[in-house]
Amino acid sequence: MRIVVLAGGIGGARFLRGLKQAVPDDATITVIGNTGDDIHLFGLKVCPDLDTVMYTLGGGINEEQGWGRTDESFAVKEELAAYGVGPEWFGLGDRDFATHIVRTQMLAAGYPLSAVTQALCKRWQPGVRLIPMSDDRVETHVAVDLDGERRAVHFQEYWVKLRASVDAHAVVPVGAEQAKPAPGVLEAIAEADVILFPPSNPVVSVGTILAVPGIREAIAEAGVPVIGLSPIVGDAPVRGMADKVLAAVGVESSAAAVAEHYGSGLLDGWLVDTVDADVVPRIEEAGIKCRAVPLMMTDPEEGTAAAEMARAALALAEEVRTA
Amino acid sequence: MRIVVLAGGIGGARFLRGLKQAVPDDATITVIGNTGDDIHLFGLKVCPDLDTVMYTLGGGINEEQGWGRTDESFAVKEELAAYGVGPEWFGLGDRDFATHIVRTQMLAAGYPLSAVTQALCKRWQPGVRLIPMSDDRVETHVAVDLDGERRAVHFQEYWVKLRASVDAHAVVPVGAEQAKPAPGVLEAIAEADVILFPPSNPVVSVGTILAVPGIREAIAEAGVPVIGLSPIVGDAPVRGMADKVLAAVGVESSAAAVAEHYGSGLLDGWLVDTVDADVVPRIEEAGIKCRAVPLMMTDPEEGTAAAEMARAALALAEEVRTA
Repeated sequence: MRIVVLAGGIGGARFLRGLKQAVPDDATITVIGNTGDDIHLFGLKVCPDLDTVMYTLGGGINEEQGWGRTDESFAVKEELAAYGVGPEWFGLGDRDFATHIVRTQMLAAGYPLSAVTQALCKRWQPGVRLIPMSDDRVETHVAVDLDGERRAVHFQEYWVKLRASVDAHAVVPVGAEQAKPAPGVLEAIAEADVILFPPSNPVVSVGTILAVPGIREAIAEAGVPVIGLSPIVGDAPVRGMADKVLAAVGVESSAAAVAEHYGSGLLDGWLVDTVDADVVPRIEEAGIKCRAVPLMMTDPEEGTAAAEMARAALALAEEVRTA
Repeated sequence: MRIVVLAGGIGGARFLRGLKQAVPDDATITVIGNTGDDIHLFGLKVCPDLDTVMYTLGGGINEEQGWGRTDESFAVKEELAAYGVGPEWFGLGDRDFATHIVRTQMLAAGYPLSAVTQALCKRWQPGVRLIPMSDDRVETHVAVDLDGERRAVHFQEYWVKLRASVDAHAVVPVGAEQAKPAPGVLEAIAEADVILFPPSNPVVSVGTILAVPGIREAIAEAGVPVIGLSPIVGDAPVRGMADKVLAAVGVESSAAAVAEHYGSGLLDGWLVDTVDADVVPRIEEAGIKCRAVPLMMTDPEEGTAAAEMARAALALAEEVRTA
């Protein structure tokens, strides 16, 4: 079984940990990672979503916060602050810095991000094939009103610095239109037996991946079940502030609205949480097979709940396939 | 009193700490720093000699080893090794990494090394004006026989990795011929009241600075006393392996031979250690005023011995001036 997963950061990574437990030994998992939240900090290329997947599946993640490295120290960051060099709002630890140093050095030497990611994964052995959505630079910007002026800020500035405390008026994956899928992305989709959208942010994670020309089309034309898991449970995001960026694209923060946002042209099946069981008929009416199962990853470290979710997604895929 | 000092790393930095104590409050000290041992590591620009001066005078040095930061940790280095990324023989600590990250970021933004150094010194407040000898890249290479073959290795590879364990057949400051003195270097020399060569390595520290076209000439023509302190005491280097690189340029490892290597065309006065008092007549015969004083910096942290050495150098300058 060849599984393709479009993943953002924490939600995607924790789901993948469960998925690895749920699949047979001969299954292969290809993860197409979001790079729209990549950012250059201190002259270094930081890829938060790729790293969260890599660290989580490779056993290096800070489990409590869901991102960054375990056993982390912050000497470099303290020193940068002593030099007056910011931003201070982005929490890069010393161990994490090493990843960005290696990545930046390899990029400067001419390697594309996909090759760099493969090299980093040699160490982490995530048990999946992790490919960035594109080797080209895509940077998600968010339009906000600050000090009475409409400004575009980097997604990380919106998410981490402002903590989504102001309304997002637009979310734009800058550069996406010109970006090409990274080598292997379209091939993996074409050869997939099932394609999964984990409970990642539908706008700035999965949405950004779909914004790279060719990826959405390839998924729609793959002819295999495309199954998503709702990142909204009971009309609130499971984690993060997904409601803020959903509002920016005119989508209500509900399990049903997100399914309809993806649409039946893309999505074949959708899992909602049991508390949202009442929306199943509405989603099925929209042409998307829907089941209600527990969607809270209550034990992220063990991944048992995520594994159950993954099994439910694969079962729904089987239902779609044989329908 | 305007003092110009040509400085390498540890020896120069410790001498400067003494010099600061020895001079009147209204004296200004301009340090022209060697950049020939600069090296790119992990995609970052590392300037060991500039940093040693900056950290030593700014109170951030690891006093025991004489280079690197105090209270240092090595998380980044450990992680780089876990990625299989070397070299492992160069001991960059986490705090030190921050300096190189800031420097590299500023250089990439287009600032010349002299401006970057000034910016870094804003934090460290070394109490001297520290200028790199050149904004252009100069890299000291050493010709050695390795595995039966003559090869050129970076000075740091010779010094730190090989620990000068093999003979140096040649020492070449690659790029020096095309390099221009950094802004302020020639002006500082022209306006100096006295020019000092601290007990730094005469080949790979002071010698490299003098190899930048225009600097040697400016010093010779400044018309002010040029006073040096012998880095060799009793026919052995005070520290380091200066004898190895002296041999490469055909100079004996002795206080007298180093003075003659600089020559009376450049040097007006020379301080040797009291154990070398017997060479004073030979050096004076060569047209260089010479005095024997204690030259061992026995209390580098306090700098009392270095301050005495600095006072002796300034006194010798006065003798030269009034001769």
